[in-house]
Amino acid sequence: MTDDRSPADADALRRLEAHYAGMPPAAAMDLRVRDWDGERLALAAPLSVHVNDKGCAFGGSLASLMTLAAWGLVTLQVEAAGLDADVFVADSEVRYRAPLFADLVAEARLDDDASWQSFIATLRARGRARATVQATVPLPEGGVATQGRLRYAAILRTPSLPG
Amino acid sequence: MTDDRSPADADALRRLEAHYAGMPPAAAMDLRVRDWDGERLALAAPLSVHVNDKGCAFGGSLASLMTLAAWGLVTLQVEAAGLDADVFVADSEVRYRAPLFADLVAEARLDDDASWQSFIATLRARGRARATVQATVPLPEGGVATQGRLRYAAILRTPSLPG
Repeated sequence: MTDDRSPADADALRRLEAHYAGMPPAAAMDLRVRDWDGERLALAAPLSVHVNDKGCAFGGSLASLMTLAAWGLVTLQVEAAGLDADVFVADSEVRYRAPLFADLVAEARLDDDASWQSFIATLRARGRARATVQATVPLPEGGVATQGRLRYAAILRTPSLPG
Repeated sequence: MTDDRSPADADALRRLEAHYAGMPPAAAMDLRVRDWDGERLALAAPLSVHVNDKGCAFGGSLASLMTLAAWGLVTLQVEAAGLDADVFVADSEVRYRAPLFADLVAEARLDDDASWQSFIATLRARGRARATVQATVPLPEGGVATQGRLRYAAILRTPSLPG
């Protein structure tokens, strides 16, 4: 993680890491937040936990790490806007382009055609909104191991009555 | 698993289960072969291991179980033809249609437009072939929780020299 993030970011990342740690399948992945710059969230996980029969990263693990990175990205944006919403994955497309013989890193960022401003405005106005996230697993030597496009739905939780 | 399968099928399923158990991320999923009828392979895994923050099955776990079921299906067909090939996932599309609040079952079968006969003939003739697999996670009450379309590549291993 970068060291120059604001205290609010640090709190949000701590909540996110605690959230992952509290979900059995995410806890089993031994993942950590590697980087967050306000636009791009990167998660990392050790190859030893995710290695397949060919000595490279298992496709299901790559898809799972991208799913968690994309979910975390949407959740961080919802929280940063002061909103409380359930965030669901709706669908995903994943392309496995090259085998990865190194630790896994999944980076998630909003699709180029979308804006967080309009996502948050829709969520506030209608109580629900959709976001398309681009996820990438880079190769350490340059290039891309795995590429994904994942759509998420956020639905505001019913606010509890005051008092 | 059904009890009326042939001894050859039983051996193939034992090899497949040993293969899953030997892969750390698959072993962590606590999965088992639930059914195999020669056309459709079903894997199962307990919800408790795959539960998310909303009490239902984590999307990444559903994608992983579908990936392993589809991989197993292609591998069983390659082995049944007496061939030795590496089987890779090439890409996947997954649609999360309804939350699953029960143990996970992923069923894989060849796409309706394809035939194993032609896949095996291509693999024999060219040393490589592609198969499109349909994967489904059913809801216990009827209907579908998750639906996937996964493409696999099989590449014959270079035969070792005799003696």
